[in-house]
Amino acid sequence: MIKNVFLYEKNVGIVKTEYFTFAEPPNEMVLESGERLGPITLAYETYGKLNKERSNAILVLHALSGDAHAAGFHEGDSKPGWWDGMIGPGKAIDTEKYFVISSNVIGGCKGSTGPSSINPKTKRPYGLDFPIITIGDMVNAQIHLIEKFGIKKILSVIGGSMGGMQVLQWMHSYPDRINSAIPIATTLRHNPQQIAFNEIGRKAIMADPNWDNGNYYGHSPPLKGLAIARMIGHVTYLSAFAMNEKFGRRIKENKEYQKFSPEFEVEHYLRYKGDNFVKRFDANSYLYITKAMDYFDLLNNNKTIDEIFKNLKAKILVISFKSDWLYPPEQSLEIVKACQLAGVDFSYHEINSNYGHDSFLVDIKEQAEIIKNFLKDVADMNGVET
Amino acid sequence: MIKNVFLYEKNVGIVKTEYFTFAEPPNEMVLESGERLGPITLAYETYGKLNKERSNAILVLHALSGDAHAAGFHEGDSKPGWWDGMIGPGKAIDTEKYFVISSNVIGGCKGSTGPSSINPKTKRPYGLDFPIITIGDMVNAQIHLIEKFGIKKILSVIGGSMGGMQVLQWMHSYPDRINSAIPIATTLRHNPQQIAFNEIGRKAIMADPNWDNGNYYGHSPPLKGLAIARMIGHVTYLSAFAMNEKFGRRIKENKEYQKFSPEFEVEHYLRYKGDNFVKRFDANSYLYITKAMDYFDLLNNNKTIDEIFKNLKAKILVISFKSDWLYPPEQSLEIVKACQLAGVDFSYHEINSNYGHDSFLVDIKEQAEIIKNFLKDVADMNGVET
Repeated sequence: MIKNVFLYEKNVGIVKTEYFTFAEPPNEMVLESGERLGPITLAYETYGKLNKERSNAILVLHALSGDAHAAGFHEGDSKPGWWDGMIGPGKAIDTEKYFVISSNVIGGCKGSTGPSSINPKTKRPYGLDFPIITIGDMVNAQIHLIEKFGIKKILSVIGGSMGGMQVLQWMHSYPDRINSAIPIATTLRHNPQQIAFNEIGRKAIMADPNWDNGNYYGHSPPLKGLAIARMIGHVTYLSAFAMNEKFGRRIKENKEYQKFSPEFEVEHYLRYKGDNFVKRFDANSYLYITKAMDYFDLLNNNKTIDEIFKNLKAKILVISFKSDWLYPPEQSLEIVKACQLAGVDFSYHEINSNYGHDSFLVDIKEQAEIIKNFLKDVADMNGVET
Repeated sequence: MIKNVFLYEKNVGIVKTEYFTFAEPPNEMVLESGERLGPITLAYETYGKLNKERSNAILVLHALSGDAHAAGFHEGDSKPGWWDGMIGPGKAIDTEKYFVISSNVIGGCKGSTGPSSINPKTKRPYGLDFPIITIGDMVNAQIHLIEKFGIKKILSVIGGSMGGMQVLQWMHSYPDRINSAIPIATTLRHNPQQIAFNEIGRKAIMADPNWDNGNYYGHSPPLKGLAIARMIGHVTYLSAFAMNEKFGRRIKENKEYQKFSPEFEVEHYLRYKGDNFVKRFDANSYLYITKAMDYFDLLNNNKTIDEIFKNLKAKILVISFKSDWLYPPEQSLEIVKACQLAGVDFSYHEINSNYGHDSFLVDIKEQAEIIKNFLKDVADMNGVET
């Protein structure tokens, strides 16, 4: 289905995820809830070289189920990072020019501190004792990572979906720390349909008896519930058109046929995606991260839309995809409106892709051209030496 | 949210569901699978009077979770049947003119034979021994009901969603038995997105340990799994716009707050809808009926689209709703195309409603006018005396 012409062409080679720990007690980070969290570890990867002026850093932020491994290959792996089509030598986010930092999020399960991490107070996994985290908390943690590199101002912060929420949070909370930003296929706040799909996924996890109120570490985790949550996610990430093109009504042979076992190809695909996901994701992290997304609302607290980005001098590129019904172009147009009302220098592109919300991950070509040109302008404007 | 001006105005009064049993062994009905089923009971209700010529009968067919109770009130109930806004004296389907038969489906759990019925061979509920049924089988059973009333030709067969699939099946399989038909918010075949949402619901039921391979009768049924299936359904029946209008991001107070318990109004609503549904629906029926919908494909078996309705002389009214993303107008346009290619006398209306797939149930006004006028024309053309 997907012709990703950029993929595998050139890449950053073998990479390794690294880990940065900060907020050691008694200097825990204060979360938006008022609770304290520490120590905090953030998993991250970097590609390319930071220049002398430390002015060529690009921060890449991932979506719900993503991780720090955005480009290149882990030793022994045959599949590259999740945005390898976009990041690499000569690619849109050109690692010959820019120093790319790809940061994981707190609350997750990909090497950063989350509910499956050891609670220093109990020496056992946090489980539901892990505090509620927000998109704001994720970004507040990333500031520590940027400072570790001695970077005062990021050239650009880029991400799609939940990564885009983090981008918007950067624009809102740290307007002086970014020269530009690219929020992709995202929203200023989750609408009730987006909350509903997340809530059903959470319900499926919590309905699994193995969930055991989050205390499943060391026992059988709630794999069935998590697989269902992931299946729901997958359907919402694809367009009806893309699913029709990819699966149609084709039947896949099933030797162990029983009543109500998968028959249609799309059923096998969803089962495969669900079963695979549970091998690499923690159910409690799914609860915490989806909740952070649902809480996200830059229009909240009686702020009006014209105040969200009022101090923002950065150059903004907003991207949406025509067939994305989960984060539809109307939500990107709200971001555009907030930029307009704040006098922000922005441009907006709605890409005519058929692949639904997943377009930002799979339909690289037009997106790559737009981002490449935008970053070149931003680098030139800021006199970035590479 | 919903201004249903027709509701409660006039109604057919107190009604009772009735039951018709046929296909007694050894004269079982042969299903499309080749398996035999009998005896078969169909639950149904009737409103209005059959005229002497038996020419004023309208068959109304319900959707996935519906039942025979389409209009009026059951003794002691304060809520009327599911399409009371449409059926009654002076209403679109005017019970002063027409004899309305509302038929339940086989495979269900609302009084018709289904997996929770007693298997005459074992004297215990069928469970998964119940044979796979199809939309074709549902309609083949309805033919017996029509014949019981001595009706040779139905004036109109009307239904939305899965009810619309049955209407299309009538148009295809019994073109000489209908004078007109109104398929609403439906499709010639489920696309992979529709299959996917159904499959996730089935997975949720089957992941519930109480499901026990369908052998839960007399024990605890898989209520949690069924509630999740229903929640998924609900989100797909509503438009993002309607959800935003109805719930926004409002928080509902929750005295028993625990981490990840419902907070947003939309979460409470979904929980309420899910928990209510399990009191009135059988999980195995949910499996059988959703599977019948997924199997439905009038374009199958190497038939081409121009052959589906080739013998159809009936007058057809196709209705879709602009905001229905689950059964979008494009699918109704496929029905229109099949009618055009077969030279069928049809008209098509896309109603500009905001309520998503649920529009056919809740946004009555324009729909009612169109149907009322259409039925009047059909009655006049066929010289129906009322």
